[in-house]
Amino acid sequence: MPILKSPVLLIFCLIIFVGTSSSAQKTKPSLTAYEKYIDDNNDAHLKEYLEIVSIPAISSIPSHKPDAAKAASWIANKLKAIGMANVQLIPTEGNPVVYASWDKAPGKPTVLIYAHYDVQPVKESEWDNPPFSPVIKDGKIFGRGASDDKSGVMITILAIEAMLHVDGKLPVNVKFMFEGNEEMGSPYFKSFLEKNKELLKADFVLNADDGQYNENTPAITVSLRGSVRMEFSIKTANTDAHSGEFGGKTPNAVVDMAQIISSFYDKAGNVAVEGFYDKVVPVTAEQKAMIKKIPYDPATDMKILGTTAEVGDTSYSPLERIWYRPTLEIVGMQGGYTATEGHSNVIPGNAMARITCRLVNNQNGNEIVALIVKHINKNCPPGATITYKLSDGYASPVTLPANTKEYRYISDVLTRIYGKEPYQYASGGSVGAMRSVKEVLGLYAYPLGFELTDEKWHAANEYFRLSSIRKGQLVYCYYLLHLAEEETKYYR
Amino acid sequence: MPILKSPVLLIFCLIIFVGTSSSAQKTKPSLTAYEKYIDDNNDAHLKEYLEIVSIPAISSIPSHKPDAAKAASWIANKLKAIGMANVQLIPTEGNPVVYASWDKAPGKPTVLIYAHYDVQPVKESEWDNPPFSPVIKDGKIFGRGASDDKSGVMITILAIEAMLHVDGKLPVNVKFMFEGNEEMGSPYFKSFLEKNKELLKADFVLNADDGQYNENTPAITVSLRGSVRMEFSIKTANTDAHSGEFGGKTPNAVVDMAQIISSFYDKAGNVAVEGFYDKVVPVTAEQKAMIKKIPYDPATDMKILGTTAEVGDTSYSPLERIWYRPTLEIVGMQGGYTATEGHSNVIPGNAMARITCRLVNNQNGNEIVALIVKHINKNCPPGATITYKLSDGYASPVTLPANTKEYRYISDVLTRIYGKEPYQYASGGSVGAMRSVKEVLGLYAYPLGFELTDEKWHAANEYFRLSSIRKGQLVYCYYLLHLAEEETKYYR
Repeated sequence: MPILKSPVLLIFCLIIFVGTSSSAQKTKPSLTAYEKYIDDNNDAHLKEYLEIVSIPAISSIPSHKPDAAKAASWIANKLKAIGMANVQLIPTEGNPVVYASWDKAPGKPTVLIYAHYDVQPVKESEWDNPPFSPVIKDGKIFGRGASDDKSGVMITILAIEAMLHVDGKLPVNVKFMFEGNEEMGSPYFKSFLEKNKELLKADFVLNADDGQYNENTPAITVSLRGSVRMEFSIKTANTDAHSGEFGGKTPNAVVDMAQIISSFYDKAGNVAVEGFYDKVVPVTAEQKAMIKKIPYDPATDMKILGTTAEVGDTSYSPLERIWYRPTLEIVGMQGGYTATEGHSNVIPGNAMARITCRLVNNQNGNEIVALIVKHINKNCPPGATITYKLSDGYASPVTLPANTKEYRYISDVLTRIYGKEPYQYASGGSVGAMRSVKEVLGLYAYPLGFELTDEKWHAANEYFRLSSIRKGQLVYCYYLLHLAEEETKYYR
Repeated sequence: MPILKSPVLLIFCLIIFVGTSSSAQKTKPSLTAYEKYIDDNNDAHLKEYLEIVSIPAISSIPSHKPDAAKAASWIANKLKAIGMANVQLIPTEGNPVVYASWDKAPGKPTVLIYAHYDVQPVKESEWDNPPFSPVIKDGKIFGRGASDDKSGVMITILAIEAMLHVDGKLPVNVKFMFEGNEEMGSPYFKSFLEKNKELLKADFVLNADDGQYNENTPAITVSLRGSVRMEFSIKTANTDAHSGEFGGKTPNAVVDMAQIISSFYDKAGNVAVEGFYDKVVPVTAEQKAMIKKIPYDPATDMKILGTTAEVGDTSYSPLERIWYRPTLEIVGMQGGYTATEGHSNVIPGNAMARITCRLVNNQNGNEIVALIVKHINKNCPPGATITYKLSDGYASPVTLPANTKEYRYISDVLTRIYGKEPYQYASGGSVGAMRSVKEVLGLYAYPLGFELTDEKWHAANEYFRLSSIRKGQLVYCYYLLHLAEEETKYYR
């Protein structure tokens, strides 16, 4: 056959044939077997999900350290059970990081998967069900951390379980690192990365503490704000004072606190702390263009929260304010007698407020805290003394490029599973680990998580959708297949 | 004898002689027997004192209603045990009033003695010893209500016990009325008085919920401020919101609350609520003269409280501000996550504040509350809704004349027991019952109590001095003797 001029050409043709064939397989590798495993084991997996959610690993409350240890052990045992190797609880200055690896795919890329097992505190009285006695209702798991971020932990573990069970192997190498201090701004995570750089060596990093646009529409987050937290107390007396006997000449710590809090803001709703915006750059044309493509309806958020008005500087659009502008929020304030019932006629001698700032661009959490401290000291009224509780560190803002193969792989996978392309998106939230990963490991940690904004993260009655558990596992299975194929022509 | 010109003259001389003789006895009737009884029974009485202080009769917390009932029963049993008759728990819209009488002194005046057995709420964590497990330490009883006003209840009962035990009778008729809702502003007391006017018929009324200038110096309070309380909540959302995902456009209930609280005051430290001072009359020359006679050192109060500055409108002196100017104090404020430990990154969806106003002159509590409500509504920011919890009533300010025999009798007794004349004094505190007594029974309720301003009324670690228990009983015993003599020449 004239065309078969040389064996080289024959081999070339064969490659094309196989390539085409495997290309067809590549865009639609079979997920059926994983799906069947996932569905067959649904009850057992939900039982495990309830177990991990029931452990109150509240990282910002020191007395919950044993619970964090319990959660870490639970995860370690689960990782061993599904066949992960080198399972370790790596100590940090805070709670341990749970590490595990599967490295039996030599020559294949390594994916390092991040999630966190610690959770926010709770105001128990506001929960319909106790936050750490999770329940399943209306296709949702209700419990603290059910969404943020036990979902990241469980979905990624269960996806690997499915693949290891069905195939007896993974298409790529996988490492897990599950953090236990994310809800404090990951103050100990960077030093963990630095100390374990060799162990954590990888080609790709995924952050499972993230979300999608909604249940049916995917999104890829390309920027997150940072965050830093602090607490301060005003003391005006050694004791609360009888409001009659001393009222008229005695400073009131709650009033002083209210006045200091008021002084944080100008009339436009911006932060009035001097220097607060110094490192904030204007919203870029690219960011504006990105926002334009998103069918964002502020009314949706308002419906989720039950708010009836929007606040903030209206020279920025709502998404610009949430994604690209920093905030100073009072996240808690207390002074005087505030038990649910009763009324105490006292002039409070002390008051406490907690602040969380969301940071953007190159804002440095320590610098921002220093500016706030300076502002408070300057506005401290006569007769009041201020004490501060500053946190160990802060979460830096992070920006990820969208023109990378890493982004494209995720986009491919989400498009396949959701049946539509993901929005390029941003988040006003923070995952401190992401910037540290870039700085220490030199890799962008791209988000791939399934939390949705109505799931009451950090608030009472947090929940996660059962449908997201299933979809999340399929996305992760498909991601590993897709990565293997794209990077190493795994199916060819 | 030329001088004995007629029997009339003789009788006249005899009267003068007896008069002189009884006058000597009158100014120094023997208290020795009472003193002995009081001292001999000190241990048993302290045991009882600890018992009554251990009952948490917090009137402003509905769930403590059974405790109030328990305290009332305890008092009723004690009154029966000492020989008082007609002991009753008279129901009111709130807690019962404990009533008892001793009326076996026909032709003698009747003294109606007031005190209250309910107490303020507690912030348990701030107490060195649990507030309702009282302890005796350094000559003081520590426990909620030990001073305000279980002291009024116990001192008056124990004084009567001593007299009945020593003499088998009292020199005058005595009625007790012990209220159970004073710490709420006595909202149900006026209607109690109206319904029981006949039963409460008396010639003199004493209010045992009051104090002295200090341990060694007596004082008679001739005016008290009134008080009214209210609570309001700001709701900006149905839930707390993730401070990242929603921060920048979502109202913060704590910030709104801080701004409303700030708006209550002007820069001079006066209340900025429109109309607040409309019914306040200038401090009179008489009041200024009274203050001038008192060796008041503001530093003493500051030392008691541990304050380092005085606030308020300096165009009034400190005592003028405390006694004759109204106040608006924030007595408690809470919003967001405020547990002792932990940090929750949320935008609080609601915040609560409680207010106590001290009232003067003819300020009407309901009118003042209406002005504050109007002010809050006017300053309510967009997106916030306000709800109010208003109290059932309020305590009116009261002024007592100092040129009466009632005042003089008390002055005589205090001078005798303390060895010096009492200061004419005022109080910034409130006893709602006092004005009601005047309005309904037509009698001034003069204060005769032994609480001292450093005893942490309403605050943590409240205490009462054991020495005041003893002194208080002697004062009451002597008062009844003195009254009998002054009104009916009892000893002649």
